[in-house]
Amino acid sequence: MIRVTVWNEFVQEQMEGKEAILKVHPGGIHETLKGILAEDDQMQIRTATLEMPECGLSEQVLNDTDVLVWWGHVAHDRVPDEIAERVRQHVLRGMGLVALHSAHLSKPLTRVLGTSCTLKWREGDRSRVWTVDPTHPIAQGIPAYIDLPEEEMYGEFFDIPTPEDQVFISWFAGGEVFRSGCTWKRGYGKVFYFQPGHETNESYHNPHIRRVIQNAVRWAMPTIRMDVLDCPHIERALEADWK
Amino acid sequence: MIRVTVWNEFVQEQMEGKEAILKVHPGGIHETLKGILAEDDQMQIRTATLEMPECGLSEQVLNDTDVLVWWGHVAHDRVPDEIAERVRQHVLRGMGLVALHSAHLSKPLTRVLGTSCTLKWREGDRSRVWTVDPTHPIAQGIPAYIDLPEEEMYGEFFDIPTPEDQVFISWFAGGEVFRSGCTWKRGYGKVFYFQPGHETNESYHNPHIRRVIQNAVRWAMPTIRMDVLDCPHIERALEADWK
Amino acid sequence: MIRVTVWNEFVQEQMEGKEAILKVHPGGIHETLKGILAEDDQMQIRTATLEMPECGLSEQVLNDTDVLVWWGHVAHDRVPDEIAERVRQHVLRGMGLVALHSAHLSKPLTRVLGTSCTLKWREGDRSRVWTVDPTHPIAQGIPAYIDLPEEEMYGEFFDIPTPEDQVFISWFAGGEVFRSGCTWKRGYGKVFYFQPGHETNESYHNPHIRRVIQNAVRWAMPTIRMDVLDCPHIERALEADWK
Amino acid sequence: MIRVTVWNEFVQEQMEGKEAILKVHPGGIHETLKGILAEDDQMQIRTATLEMPECGLSEQVLNDTDVLVWWGHVAHDRVPDEIAERVRQHVLRGMGLVALHSAHLSKPLTRVLGTSCTLKWREGDRSRVWTVDPTHPIAQGIPAYIDLPEEEMYGEFFDIPTPEDQVFISWFAGGEVFRSGCTWKRGYGKVFYFQPGHETNESYHNPHIRRVIQNAVRWAMPTIRMDVLDCPHIERALEADWK
Repeated sequence: MIRVTVWNEFVQEQMEGKEAILKVHPGGIHETLKGILAEDDQMQIRTATLEMPECGLSEQVLNDTDVLVWWGHVAHDRVPDEIAERVRQHVLRGMGLVALHSAHLSKPLTRVLGTSCTLKWREGDRSRVWTVDPTHPIAQGIPAYIDLPEEEMYGEFFDIPTPEDQVFISWFAGGEVFRSGCTWKRGYGKVFYFQPGHETNESYHNPHIRRVIQNAVRWAMPTIRMDVLDCPHIERALEADWK
Repeated sequence: MIRVTVWNEFVQEQMEGKEAILKVHPGGIHETLKGILAEDDQMQIRTATLEMPECGLSEQVLNDTDVLVWWGHVAHDRVPDEIAERVRQHVLRGMGLVALHSAHLSKPLTRVLGTSCTLKWREGDRSRVWTVDPTHPIAQGIPAYIDLPEEEMYGEFFDIPTPEDQVFISWFAGGEVFRSGCTWKRGYGKVFYFQPGHETNESYHNPHIRRVIQNAVRWAMPTIRMDVLDCPHIERALEADWK
Repeated sequence: MIRVTVWNEFVQEQMEGKEAILKVHPGGIHETLKGILAEDDQMQIRTATLEMPECGLSEQVLNDTDVLVWWGHVAHDRVPDEIAERVRQHVLRGMGLVALHSAHLSKPLTRVLGTSCTLKWREGDRSRVWTVDPTHPIAQGIPAYIDLPEEEMYGEFFDIPTPEDQVFISWFAGGEVFRSGCTWKRGYGKVFYFQPGHETNESYHNPHIRRVIQNAVRWAMPTIRMDVLDCPHIERALEADWK
Repeated sequence: MIRVTVWNEFVQEQMEGKEAILKVHPGGIHETLKGILAEDDQMQIRTATLEMPECGLSEQVLNDTDVLVWWGHVAHDRVPDEIAERVRQHVLRGMGLVALHSAHLSKPLTRVLGTSCTLKWREGDRSRVWTVDPTHPIAQGIPAYIDLPEEEMYGEFFDIPTPEDQVFISWFAGGEVFRSGCTWKRGYGKVFYFQPGHETNESYHNPHIRRVIQNAVRWAMPTIRMDVLDCPHIERALEADWK
């Protein structure tokens, strides 16, 4: 089993204008994401939101989480630094992190990557997600490209560390390109960023996009989980013992 | 001209046991590093230390700094988060960062890299720094290896993001290896970490080590310096203008 | 001085249909490329073509070449394996290689990269070359994007080794993306591939494209040039000499 | 099932001095390697040697091979170019390649990597293989380091393309370091090079080394296998169809 926690700030779903979102995501974006992962019966999924105590991300919850999926947009700065740092520590100790769409500016992602993750944007474009690393585990079962009739444009320059694996690059009808599917290792944890998922668009109902998110969670499953990361003092050299 | 700021916490030089350090670095480690860079008359060097107001790293100083060289060891946590974040912002906007030896755990480095930068260590070993990327600008004029008769052992696993350029790997007589010279890009800035430089060792008087540090500062010189990193909203698609 | 050899197969310029090419490149594509590089008075440029003895690439010529620029299209297989292998050896020993447009399938490039360098293509599209690594030496002076009103579409999946630096990614009006500016190190040599330059298009008259090619040649200038690459037998261990 | 072909040149085992090898590898090195893989009952293993027709590597055999393990040393140049090129084509189309020890100079490896793969060497040293990417699939179950009481020293500079994953770095008692476990993608295939395995040493009887080789074969298992790699002409733009 892969124990997944889907985090959604769940703010715009309760604000003025919420109808446009709830039409696409009746139970909130976290419920849509939960539904995507629930298609795989090897996944055990819980959700967490900003309004919960400790944002729903207690030490206990993170200890019991193999992969954390993060969606946030208008309330990044309402996630306390302490919680963001706690998430970072868990990633470094092995927990996977899948950051979606506007989570590019979320505290957990920017803290593990180190950069500003800034980019250009424009609402209401059309996108085509190209697979540029077809043998990557996250690209399994994904065709040469995925057409998204409505998405928010995110454009370069995207201020990220050089991706370790560049899995997808997106084309936008308005004229831009974007490194839209990127992986990094951080400590014992794996990180994937994926661009699609504007709150009022249907992308998370596209079967290929759903498959990418499922693949990403499976890929980010930790192989080792550390209790602590420290700098051990080695008193005796290995060679002192060599005969 | 390259405008360099050499930052040293300058704490152990004023503590009990300081004699062993001052014997090697009579004016403090920052003065030794300043002397290394002063061998290049294209460098204009200032120093800054923890005890100065704002750690000597005001916005004004960082605006006037092309490359920041950082040495710290016992007082990482006495650098205020606000100063560390200010340094990170300047790196992302273009300022170079050269982090030396025990600065692996410094706030500026761990914040731009995102990982814990933990490692194994042991005092009093002997090291040989191997050049594994001989055409890299930082390796120019450096032989196949540099012998360091006395250094602190730093050993793997070193929890860093995959280096973009792996320039040096160190051998230790006690039996360990270490990825000792690593580069990363972060935003518009370049970052180099270099392992040698334990406070009571003579490494910074080795002519090859001096050359590596000089090369690193020249390499980290910014080509572009941004005033701000943000997410511009593009109102009109490029293709809207296309005939 | 940088000693550059511009190699062009110079075949289509002498075939039926040559008018469409000669209109854009009156002296052949090599003369256009020579003109680009001649704008930098630190470059000393010669040209070579397929019809010359040894394709104009004798050992002597390659020994005297710092950077080789390669354009080829319909006659890749008429370059003898021996010449291709000679070029590869010179690259590994330090000579820079800048491969342009349809040279993706050229023997020198595929031999140093190892992959098939296959891709999708379609004539007569419109392209926008996005800078995704703005601090890279090859991107100096280049704006956020370069508009090319007429180019051949090259699309993903492009079968190349993971680029070490991904400098440019191209957008095509027909709906594709392409990793269009890529660097790799090979031995002591540097390699850059750049997509624009279909024989009947005006791309090489675009000032930004010209600047990219000039930058690429400067970037590919060797820092070290080896006489031979071999596997030296080390008779005596370094540690045997250590006291 | 993973269908593995173990290729060994099987030359030194039949030459003067063969006793020292046969003592360690009674049936030849291929039989030892076969025995390693046979510990995993999901592997179906055949062997092939230089003396067989087509080196035992007919199109049929390669079509039926998921992962090819290669050991060669004194007879690299007796592998016909045509066979080496056939192996390269199969790797690009998806077949995994695990190259061991002196196979660094083998035709299949140098052709898919593009570089000379030259290095320094010395017989009769002692080695310690350090894991520097502990979460990599090839490092699963492997401790922080593996002690090898007797190995041939391979030292830097190792002329390889920058590894995509640097899994292991070796320490040698004589004073050298070596990037001893490296991965690359090539086309649809995965490539792993691993340093241990001098013909008269016991490394392949070390349980951790055996585990690395098993892990590597599993990791190199193709996810996609292509029939052909070509450059399809796209007649109609995707956007031509867009409403």
